[in-house]
Amino acid sequence: MINQLVEKIKKTNAPVVVGLDPMLSYIPEHILKKSYDEYGETLKGAAEAVFEYNKGIVDNIYDIVPAVKPQIAMYEQFGIEGLAAFKRTVDYCHEKGLVVIGDIKRGDIGSTSTAYAVGHIGKVTVGSKTYTPIDEDFVTVNPYLGSDGIKPFIDVCKENDKGIFVLVKTSNPSSGEFQDRLVDGRPLYELVGEQVDKWGQECMGDSYSNVGAVVGATYPEQGKILRKLMPKTFILVPGYGAQGGKGKDLVDYFNEDGLGAIVNSSRGIICAYKQEKYASFGSLNYADASRQATLDMIEDINTARG
Amino acid sequence: MINQLVEKIKKTNAPVVVGLDPMLSYIPEHILKKSYDEYGETLKGAAEAVFEYNKGIVDNIYDIVPAVKPQIAMYEQFGIEGLAAFKRTVDYCHEKGLVVIGDIKRGDIGSTSTAYAVGHIGKVTVGSKTYTPIDEDFVTVNPYLGSDGIKPFIDVCKENDKGIFVLVKTSNPSSGEFQDRLVDGRPLYELVGEQVDKWGQECMGDSYSNVGAVVGATYPEQGKILRKLMPKTFILVPGYGAQGGKGKDLVDYFNEDGLGAIVNSSRGIICAYKQEKYASFGSLNYADASRQATLDMIEDINTARG
Repeated sequence: MINQLVEKIKKTNAPVVVGLDPMLSYIPEHILKKSYDEYGETLKGAAEAVFEYNKGIVDNIYDIVPAVKPQIAMYEQFGIEGLAAFKRTVDYCHEKGLVVIGDIKRGDIGSTSTAYAVGHIGKVTVGSKTYTPIDEDFVTVNPYLGSDGIKPFIDVCKENDKGIFVLVKTSNPSSGEFQDRLVDGRPLYELVGEQVDKWGQECMGDSYSNVGAVVGATYPEQGKILRKLMPKTFILVPGYGAQGGKGKDLVDYFNEDGLGAIVNSSRGIICAYKQEKYASFGSLNYADASRQATLDMIEDINTARG
Repeated sequence: MINQLVEKIKKTNAPVVVGLDPMLSYIPEHILKKSYDEYGETLKGAAEAVFEYNKGIVDNIYDIVPAVKPQIAMYEQFGIEGLAAFKRTVDYCHEKGLVVIGDIKRGDIGSTSTAYAVGHIGKVTVGSKTYTPIDEDFVTVNPYLGSDGIKPFIDVCKENDKGIFVLVKTSNPSSGEFQDRLVDGRPLYELVGEQVDKWGQECMGDSYSNVGAVVGATYPEQGKILRKLMPKTFILVPGYGAQGGKGKDLVDYFNEDGLGAIVNSSRGIICAYKQEKYASFGSLNYADASRQATLDMIEDINTARG
């Protein structure tokens, strides 16, 4: 799957992923009203509004970016109806030819990790039949439980040509609380990074591994070190835009081939119409504002990778 | 919510939680057949079988244990239909008066952690209405992202009288890969434990905090240290039974009040009828086997806590 992602990044010339992390407060009034009129102010009504909002954005960005990253928490907050909207979003993005990175941050051990993996990026068997339940292309995974937690995901990746991004150094202010603690004089995230590199060796694509890493845009110094420590690891970079990361901070997340990283923006794109810069689009044309914000982001990132 | 859990443990005299982690291979043939006859060999058919299987067990154990712990991965593997069976299981367990610990191991940052928290243990607002989407009583949470990831859960706990169990030292063989690494001469899990104790202080029940910890039964030495490090923290103990932990290993997970820990068994109980010891029940009476295995476990654990 990493080969497909690399191919799409080259084709679009955009190492950019749009985070589909909808909050009800982001959704324009006309979409909310239509959904509530049809389904009421219910979980179903919220879920339908979320899907319609996503659809508008996807229709306006699918030809200029390689991938989207729906954040499952934003759907899970509406329970089963919300999760059904997550699944519809995944399917719709596939219809439009996008690579789908499920930002699910799952992680457990043994058969439990296997269950998450088959549910999201694999196949599950029911009697004599086989199904691909949620069917993302990549998912994000939490490393705290160690190899027992990660290897079942890697096995499922191998069987289904899928990929994962393992949390290494996250973008949030308190990520250092545990991730930066020094072990034998080196921060824990470096140890996790080395392990990701090692796990990745058994699941290689052509030039990069199907086991990637998450490293926040907000920590460029650490990003530079991790880039060198994990030369074949693709880095998913959250924290651009609304969280404070800028294109110029990201020079060192890329390899000399101009690849090796894909930068996410969520709110900065899906909620662009609420920014002063894009306000002239108006809420009816929120998706056009998202397209323009995406084009601006691509330019900013591409300047940075030279 | 910790007060309710403590109350129920006292009432049943059983610091035991039954893990509802169904695999299709555990489910007796007569349940599978009935469900497949009605819904086909589909995700819906699998989900229905899972729910019926759970229901049988819950009907036979609800009066002797305080709580159940459904593992969401085992439902998520069947996609949206599976997740709907998870929700039905949560609701059914509540009907029977059980405390429900959702083993979801979620964890993200800021508004994303809030979204998970409202979805599972809180309330979400849709227009002028409010809903409790999945509505467990406790959930398990991963600490790798630090305070930014945990505090939103704690805020939701406070608003809704709910609780969390934070992963500290997990029961799996490779849990030491990162959790045991020495930071200033002390293993990382101790630092996480101290942080859990600190987080817990702002969310106290009568004698224990609503912020608990997960410490595996397979590491009794570490359990002893963590018990002292987090005196007001309730410990959820996985790894008993099938993973190798025994009652006598668990003496030091309890405080002098005989409380402070609740021990989980999943496969050892829900799949008891497949063990030689309980084989005479037969697969038709699988739930009676589960009841007997639960009674045996309670006796084993209570001998240990003296």
